Amino acid sequence: MKKKSLLEDGPTKKIFETDDPDLQIVEFKDAEAIYDDEHINAVKGKADVNSQLSSQLLEYLQGFHVPTYFVRTEPKHSMVVRTLDIIPIQLMMRNCAAGTLCKRFGLNEGKVLDIPILEYYLKNNTDEYQLINSSHAVSFSLATADELRTIDRLASKINAVLKSFFERRDIKLVDFKLEFGRHKGKLMVGGEISLDTFRLWDISDEGYFDKKKFSLAGDRAEPGFEEIKNRLFSTD
Amino acid sequence: MKKKSLLEDGPTKKIFETDDPDLQIVEFKDAEAIYDDEHINAVKGKADVNSQLSSQLLEYLQGFHVPTYFVRTEPKHSMVVRTLDIIPIQLMMRNCAAGTLCKRFGLNEGKVLDIPILEYYLKNNTDEYQLINSSHAVSFSLATADELRTIDRLASKINAVLKSFFERRDIKLVDFKLEFGRHKGKLMVGGEISLDTFRLWDISDEGYFDKKKFSLAGDRAEPGFEEIKNRLFSTD
Repeated sequence: MKKKSLLEDGPTKKIFETDDPDLQIVEFKDAEAIYDDEHINAVKGKADVNSQLSSQLLEYLQGFHVPTYFVRTEPKHSMVVRTLDIIPIQLMMRNCAAGTLCKRFGLNEGKVLDIPILEYYLKNNTDEYQLINSSHAVSFSLATADELRTIDRLASKINAVLKSFFERRDIKLVDFKLEFGRHKGKLMVGGEISLDTFRLWDISDEGYFDKKKFSLAGDRAEPGFEEIKNRLFSTD
Repeated sequence: MKKKSLLEDGPTKKIFETDDPDLQIVEFKDAEAIYDDEHINAVKGKADVNSQLSSQLLEYLQGFHVPTYFVRTEPKHSMVVRTLDIIPIQLMMRNCAAGTLCKRFGLNEGKVLDIPILEYYLKNNTDEYQLINSSHAVSFSLATADELRTIDRLASKINAVLKSFFERRDIKLVDFKLEFGRHKGKLMVGGEISLDTFRLWDISDEGYFDKKKFSLAGDRAEPGFEEIKNRLFSTD
């Protein structure tokens, strides 16, 4: 398989086509990201952690029969993935109140939600994605009602799997982003599952946790790097 | 049944308790209203049209086996209704793009939606209700998932019934608000179905309709009153 031309140069990763139309290469970048209105700084070494994390978690999910576009890891912070027809909806799964959810509804940060909240945002070409619901998605022909039911079911399963993965590492999965696409008509998880796409808190810091510590959003991000890698990859 | 003390003095109607705890009296006002970001002026005679319209349409819906809180009309622009435990969600059903939907998604006003859009807004004590989805509603304990399924089904049926009612009068039902409540545990339509809670356009004015004409939102509202009453109540 040969890496060919750059198809997309996104904020946190590049996508290359290959000589196989069914496969693409995703290359992670040490770049700034925006997560739920928070800026996540460009940090040297972030691409390394994010590519490891994404590859391992996407593969880990496949072990739970969650279809993902991941095929294998590649050198240079990259992974080989299945070519997707991306559904332009960014999903946000929330287990605790944080970020924009607190702003919108006046909730206290850290409040555990009795039932997780799953939000859809319309991915447009602006910085501010619009909250939509399933009837907007169907009416705007982004996905069929059947596809959305499958997506909701998979998102809920992914939440259960990842929550448990992080809890075993004493980390609380506060919320995370997901995206889906179709490969030969079959729905699967695309994008990335990385430090840029979830908000993690140390489980021991109840109340006054350092919420930036594992999200790479704050000043302490760089020194925390080795700790993150150790916590995430040393067991399981 | 005796009318007793004022329970609520809302923007467009007053609610009174009665000596029967299961029944209340709703009295319409000639007051200003806000509909999907549009101001609808206070107009003398509006309470008269709105009480007629609400009473007749709520009763009309019951004929299609849609449960509503309407019991009977009363003098002084009033109706007797069943006491409700109100679900604090304002529903918005949209058949064509207009108002805030156009603003949010850059749609052309008047675009017919292939599939109607049903939105939930959280009724809080501010002027700006927040768009939510069913998982917010369940997580915030506003309603159960089962109740929301029933509400969605009823909203879709109400849309079909009202659309057809207005089409027979050469009026296009662009969008409308709905609210639901529980009476002895049973879900039913509450609130009002009036000129303050829908956007109607003359069907013949395709393209350059006077969108304010039937919504009472513009300067031409008052002169159009008799026409509205004639169009709505003279046939069927």
